[in-house]
Amino acid sequence: MSSSNPRDMNRRFVLGALAGLPMLPMLPALLGASSARADDAPPLPSWNDGPAKQGILDFIRATTDPASKDFVPADERIATFDQDGTLWVEQPIYTQIVYCLDRLPVVVKANPHLAHVEPFRTVLTGDFEKIAKLSLHDFETIAVATLTGMDVEEFAVEVKAWIDQARDHRWKKLYTDLVYQPMQEVLSFFRANGYKTFIVTGGGQDFVRVYSQRVYGIPPEQVVGSALGTKFGYDKEGRPFLTKEPKLLLNDDNAGKPEGIHLEIGRRPRAAFGNSTGDRQMLEYVKAGDGARLSMIVLHDDGKREYAYGPAHGLPETRVGRFPQSLYDEAKNAGWSVISMKDDWKRIFAFD
Amino acid sequence: MSSSNPRDMNRRFVLGALAGLPMLPMLPALLGASSARADDAPPLPSWNDGPAKQGILDFIRATTDPASKDFVPADERIATFDQDGTLWVEQPIYTQIVYCLDRLPVVVKANPHLAHVEPFRTVLTGDFEKIAKLSLHDFETIAVATLTGMDVEEFAVEVKAWIDQARDHRWKKLYTDLVYQPMQEVLSFFRANGYKTFIVTGGGQDFVRVYSQRVYGIPPEQVVGSALGTKFGYDKEGRPFLTKEPKLLLNDDNAGKPEGIHLEIGRRPRAAFGNSTGDRQMLEYVKAGDGARLSMIVLHDDGKREYAYGPAHGLPETRVGRFPQSLYDEAKNAGWSVISMKDDWKRIFAFD
Repeated sequence: MSSSNPRDMNRRFVLGALAGLPMLPMLPALLGASSARADDAPPLPSWNDGPAKQGILDFIRATTDPASKDFVPADERIATFDQDGTLWVEQPIYTQIVYCLDRLPVVVKANPHLAHVEPFRTVLTGDFEKIAKLSLHDFETIAVATLTGMDVEEFAVEVKAWIDQARDHRWKKLYTDLVYQPMQEVLSFFRANGYKTFIVTGGGQDFVRVYSQRVYGIPPEQVVGSALGTKFGYDKEGRPFLTKEPKLLLNDDNAGKPEGIHLEIGRRPRAAFGNSTGDRQMLEYVKAGDGARLSMIVLHDDGKREYAYGPAHGLPETRVGRFPQSLYDEAKNAGWSVISMKDDWKRIFAFD
Repeated sequence: MSSSNPRDMNRRFVLGALAGLPMLPMLPALLGASSARADDAPPLPSWNDGPAKQGILDFIRATTDPASKDFVPADERIATFDQDGTLWVEQPIYTQIVYCLDRLPVVVKANPHLAHVEPFRTVLTGDFEKIAKLSLHDFETIAVATLTGMDVEEFAVEVKAWIDQARDHRWKKLYTDLVYQPMQEVLSFFRANGYKTFIVTGGGQDFVRVYSQRVYGIPPEQVVGSALGTKFGYDKEGRPFLTKEPKLLLNDDNAGKPEGIHLEIGRRPRAAFGNSTGDRQMLEYVKAGDGARLSMIVLHDDGKREYAYGPAHGLPETRVGRFPQSLYDEAKNAGWSVISMKDDWKRIFAFD
């Protein structure tokens, strides 16, 4: 699950009430937006009718209707969601990597000798084509330089300042605007039905926790992700603080996802959503539980509105978000539901 | 925070929804147990009036009154509680150790050669005096033998079967009945005021998660504790499962407590409760945050109703729950509140 070998770091991380009042029938109307009216609004408005949407509706009914054989008590309703490629755009490069690249000049300013050392020198050229050709090891080196050595709360302030203004190159939007509206509706629908929603990401949990509440309505303590160790110590005034250390505690990708779920959640989720080989073991683990279980996988097949990638549909393989034919075959054989962005989603983004 | 060296294992581990309806003033009465009536019930009924109780009341008012300069938004209200010695009895030996000792015959039955190997041979004699003299390393060996090698869900079933019937030697009560009633009231009071309550224990989180919801009203995902790694794999039928591994991921004691809080919660709590040197860094970390912060420490000074131990009050040092004079001095100097079980608690247990 983890390794103390810095070379093993970041294999993905880097890239990566009012019921029962018959005497007051007018009360809901007096109250305005009553729970009855909320329930009457059709869920998942950005989804086209089809097997994917129906699968979600059927699962929620099966696990929340007290008369259902698959009813799940409210305090056992746990659903997990991958982030990159499942909740927001992951192409052409994971947002956290962009953060690391953008942050590097500050690190070099504090340590000027790094300007002459690779891979920092290449990054400082700003030549995106050259940067894109850096090796995984190079990206690991950049990650260690930009994600470790500081107070954890100072790190959170830096990430917040960045994410509040950083924009992507294609849509010129804030990265946090590039979340998939249909998945936001899934998160809300699950929560409205008593599910606790968690992010389970190959990205760094310290990074995602900075904006998870605002962007997804998911509090920091419900974000599981790749995690570096921290070291407790005291500053000159004797005040305690935690420093981010270059030591990988949890590589929350592939087999690390179910392991990370066990570490930070402690039980098998009832539902999971992913989009790539990094989510395979989580989707397998969830689907293998007893009773009704939902495993869904997002297929990026809409090159016009977003990106189309993955050999499962004869689309090009990419460095991020791998979706090979073998994963598609497993999804079909194991009863996972495949979400076609092209066919199942009326719109991709809230701004569409 | 963690170590892959098995010898480092278990250093502690072992051992108004209706607000704003002026047209309906009779509604609360119609509704029966209204929120107004619930608020009118005095909180903390098992506490004597005094600085400890007042400290809790003042903290809650300061952080939940919107007019207070120290108001904390509802989604940032986090409180952490040590378990052994803070929420339930830890003397004369941690409950989880009793589990390990009770479990050993099953392990030896499956591996008969262990009957002739120390420390297993000593444990099998059932001679409590000899068992009490085993070294820390011996207890680590016992922990590895009884807590690892099985499916995580199988482990949970075994712990549940044990904890549902195991009784302590002094009161002849279920261990889960030996929780401190005043602390249960603190947990409830915090939750009634919008705080999320977490256990942060030096004990194993997989162990505590089995009964945390039933006993404390705290769901498994809000239990942070010492954690062993798990390994994802497939059984003969190809079904995925997780095996508990003899590798310490998180030693959630001493400096490991703030580190574990960062790993699994991701932010500095507003309040923390502990009772020993193992909680020192957590209490320091919490108190050092901005605004109103509450760090409280339980002093076991009631030898009649429970146990009296710790040199801070001239009481004998014990193997578990260390409370030296230096900790008492730090508490006084740093503005932590010391809870005297003898003076501050009207009763200790619900059955008193």
